[in-house]
Amino acid sequence: MPNADYSSLLEHIRETSLLDSTAALLDWDQETMMPTGGGAVDYRARQMAQLAKLVHQRNTDPKIEPWLAACESDKTLTADPTCPTAVNLREIRHQYDRDTKLPAKLVTEFSHTTSLAKHHWAEARKNNDFATFEPWLGKTIELNHQRARCWGWPEEGEPWDTLADGFEPGMTAAKVEKIFSPLRDRLTPLIADLTEAETRPSDRFNQVKLPLDEQRRFVREVIAQIGFQFNRGRLDESTHPFCSGTHRDDVRLTTRFHETMLNDALGSTLHESGHGLYEQNLPDGEHLNTPYGSAAGLAVHESQSRLIENQLGRSHAFWTWCHPKLREYFGTKVADLSLDDCYQGANRVTPGLIRVEADEATYNLHIMIRFELERALVRGDLSPSDLPGVWQEKYAAYLGVEVPDNARGCMQDIHWSMGAMGYFPTYTIGTMLAAQLFETALEQIPDLFEQFSRGQFDALTGWLNRNVHRRGRTYYAEELCETVTGQPLSADPLIRHLENKLKPLHGLA
Amino acid sequence: MPNADYSSLLEHIRETSLLDSTAALLDWDQETMMPTGGGAVDYRARQMAQLAKLVHQRNTDPKIEPWLAACESDKTLTADPTCPTAVNLREIRHQYDRDTKLPAKLVTEFSHTTSLAKHHWAEARKNNDFATFEPWLGKTIELNHQRARCWGWPEEGEPWDTLADGFEPGMTAAKVEKIFSPLRDRLTPLIADLTEAETRPSDRFNQVKLPLDEQRRFVREVIAQIGFQFNRGRLDESTHPFCSGTHRDDVRLTTRFHETMLNDALGSTLHESGHGLYEQNLPDGEHLNTPYGSAAGLAVHESQSRLIENQLGRSHAFWTWCHPKLREYFGTKVADLSLDDCYQGANRVTPGLIRVEADEATYNLHIMIRFELERALVRGDLSPSDLPGVWQEKYAAYLGVEVPDNARGCMQDIHWSMGAMGYFPTYTIGTMLAAQLFETALEQIPDLFEQFSRGQFDALTGWLNRNVHRRGRTYYAEELCETVTGQPLSADPLIRHLENKLKPLHGLA
Repeated sequence: MPNADYSSLLEHIRETSLLDSTAALLDWDQETMMPTGGGAVDYRARQMAQLAKLVHQRNTDPKIEPWLAACESDKTLTADPTCPTAVNLREIRHQYDRDTKLPAKLVTEFSHTTSLAKHHWAEARKNNDFATFEPWLGKTIELNHQRARCWGWPEEGEPWDTLADGFEPGMTAAKVEKIFSPLRDRLTPLIADLTEAETRPSDRFNQVKLPLDEQRRFVREVIAQIGFQFNRGRLDESTHPFCSGTHRDDVRLTTRFHETMLNDALGSTLHESGHGLYEQNLPDGEHLNTPYGSAAGLAVHESQSRLIENQLGRSHAFWTWCHPKLREYFGTKVADLSLDDCYQGANRVTPGLIRVEADEATYNLHIMIRFELERALVRGDLSPSDLPGVWQEKYAAYLGVEVPDNARGCMQDIHWSMGAMGYFPTYTIGTMLAAQLFETALEQIPDLFEQFSRGQFDALTGWLNRNVHRRGRTYYAEELCETVTGQPLSADPLIRHLENKLKPLHGLA
Repeated sequence: MPNADYSSLLEHIRETSLLDSTAALLDWDQETMMPTGGGAVDYRARQMAQLAKLVHQRNTDPKIEPWLAACESDKTLTADPTCPTAVNLREIRHQYDRDTKLPAKLVTEFSHTTSLAKHHWAEARKNNDFATFEPWLGKTIELNHQRARCWGWPEEGEPWDTLADGFEPGMTAAKVEKIFSPLRDRLTPLIADLTEAETRPSDRFNQVKLPLDEQRRFVREVIAQIGFQFNRGRLDESTHPFCSGTHRDDVRLTTRFHETMLNDALGSTLHESGHGLYEQNLPDGEHLNTPYGSAAGLAVHESQSRLIENQLGRSHAFWTWCHPKLREYFGTKVADLSLDDCYQGANRVTPGLIRVEADEATYNLHIMIRFELERALVRGDLSPSDLPGVWQEKYAAYLGVEVPDNARGCMQDIHWSMGAMGYFPTYTIGTMLAAQLFETALEQIPDLFEQFSRGQFDALTGWLNRNVHRRGRTYYAEELCETVTGQPLSADPLIRHLENKLKPLHGLA
């Protein structure tokens, strides 16, 4: 039973998390609603820095150490490492040890600078102007360097590791390399086969022009059907789709629309709704605003978004349900689009420039490039001014595409501008985990696809709730994988998934 | 020249104001964006209460008293009572003396309760369910009682006074009565004449049905033309139109639309844009987040919104410009509407139920009713359960209308639910001030109306900038009136304005 120290500690943590969620709202607002004229951007950066400072003050409050120490010596709290008390103590310790290593000044400077850098990135990207963005990139790298030096890393490690640990505890560059290597080995020939195949899946779905307002209504209905609750969330628009919010009953997704890209909008919206389902179904009640009631980390989060986007949203069964829905919404404008046009359009493998528009197979190469580059940037092996050139080289080497400009090159993603380095690999780890989780779900609920084809998604989301969402932060990605699937994380399920689906679509055995 | 104590004090105040503006964003978001399912409303109330507590802690920081005392003894800072240092010290003292009288617990409880009460008010209003709202009204009255007792009031005064002092320093019920009395004496016979007149202005403008999206675009263009800068602000929709935001470069207006009520939407939007122009043009730079850089109080604020809504937006000259614009946007749908239909529709005097839909003449009776009722509620002479009945009686007596339900009766306004008691009279004082300011502007720029008819509003807004906006919080309503117009605040200009415009429209001499 929780003791008095534990109660005091949790009360403190809950209040801090409440305050932190206010910062999350400021951030969401900046991306979706805030005007950017006059001094609005600077002002918001100051608001963000102020909250970062207050949160950091609370996170490094000297009262925490004695509370923690008292709780850690009470073995009843930690006897079962998967119970809420143990998970909370583990996470609070991890966070406290990291936070107390950072000077307050660096925390506010990081918040302030990244809030501004994000804005300058968006402007620079719009104008394809790397020269303006470069100093901001330099600043975020330098600040991440400083943070990494404060946190430190083992002799056999590197600074990237300690940055990544903030997104996915325990992740290191060496570990990522070990996970990526077998995937790369099997993915590269598969992509070559698919790209060179004589049979090309239909691209008609990606050419039809559809009014934006109808697209907006359509994607809303689709994700509502899958289970995203709009009375406890929102869907807005932003340059870079994301999932944010303040807590499980206020989950905010964004997506984006172009007249000829419903497929892209739908994919992005499905992706974010997977994040949203996770957030809306986290542990409730006493677990609100506690680590146990939070998501497990970015890799698990990404497994949820990729599973909804790919295993569900790119399946033939999903399109069997969705295709008539499309006709219902868009009428004669889609009269020429068959179910197969949609299914093939969503699964066409074409090496391209843009990560978030990539097909399921090449997507992971985009991630591998970013991982290599950010590792080098953080290590100091690559200077910001050399980034555009190296980006071009890697895209030529890995994907065989020529990068025409930096807007569609090294400035396409928001992450580095917002200071998130050590983040990208969670996308591919999450993609692998999604495939592995879905294989297990399918073993346990063999008629999942038949259900999808009838527009029934609650057996899947119920399974995800029980096996992932409601477990909160109990397990990180690799442990969760073992616990749910009985197997260590592996590239096999993802490769099986890709081969089984994509080869027939490209006329391969 | 500012001394070190002054610099420390101002730095502290600026940081507090920055934090307070984050609370303002939470509030805006709750009214416009936040989902309300699950625990979202309760969670937001907790976020608000937490910030209220932090702001109150900063506002009552024991460091303030010695800084203030040191500054107050430095006569160079206060020699000129209208210079920024003197204004800041006056305001900081006023606020500090009020804040230190409130226990922190009451501050957080007030914030938490009013955040919830606002939500329950909106729900109860929707369902015309006074019984659900009544206990929340009771709570906000009781908490205002408690606050008033903490602040205290002079023997000859009453608790309402000290609540009003928070919105308009120095305002008392007796003073309001003295201002309202001559206005009431002249307004009552005027309204009787106008209502009984045989000539009725055209009502055709208020009957034409127009698509909401076109209305949205139309009102945006109108207020942009008047000078509201959308790169430093927004316009959204809410049940109750308001103006909010975080600072002068992030000013957020709301309005509302109905198919047959463009006139109402335009009036509301013009009204809020008047608030918005004030906020967007407050003193900048070092004055940001200081009292000097803030609005002068609610009466002056309301003078700016009423001036744009009434003196400008209900003028024949405005409609001379706006009528062709209307045709441009709505085409054949308004083909039958003449310029006079629009001008008359905007100026038709009809005693009605709803304050925010009231014409210029009867509007002030709505305010007088509310003033009398909230004064009685706060004094304890009227219990919440008796409010609906007394509301009906007053509406019958003052406006001759029968109140069919509480949604269109005592639950129509948000103010009491959000804890704002002592606020309503500023609407009528602002309305009087608007008329008096505009008379002076017209003396100094005699061709103002000709300019309006050409869509030129910058001479007026420039005049308002110089005489009101850029003065920040230097003068409260009555002093500002004397300073700008050379005359004490009086009912005469408003009565002249109403008689000169409304009598001819109703066929009276």
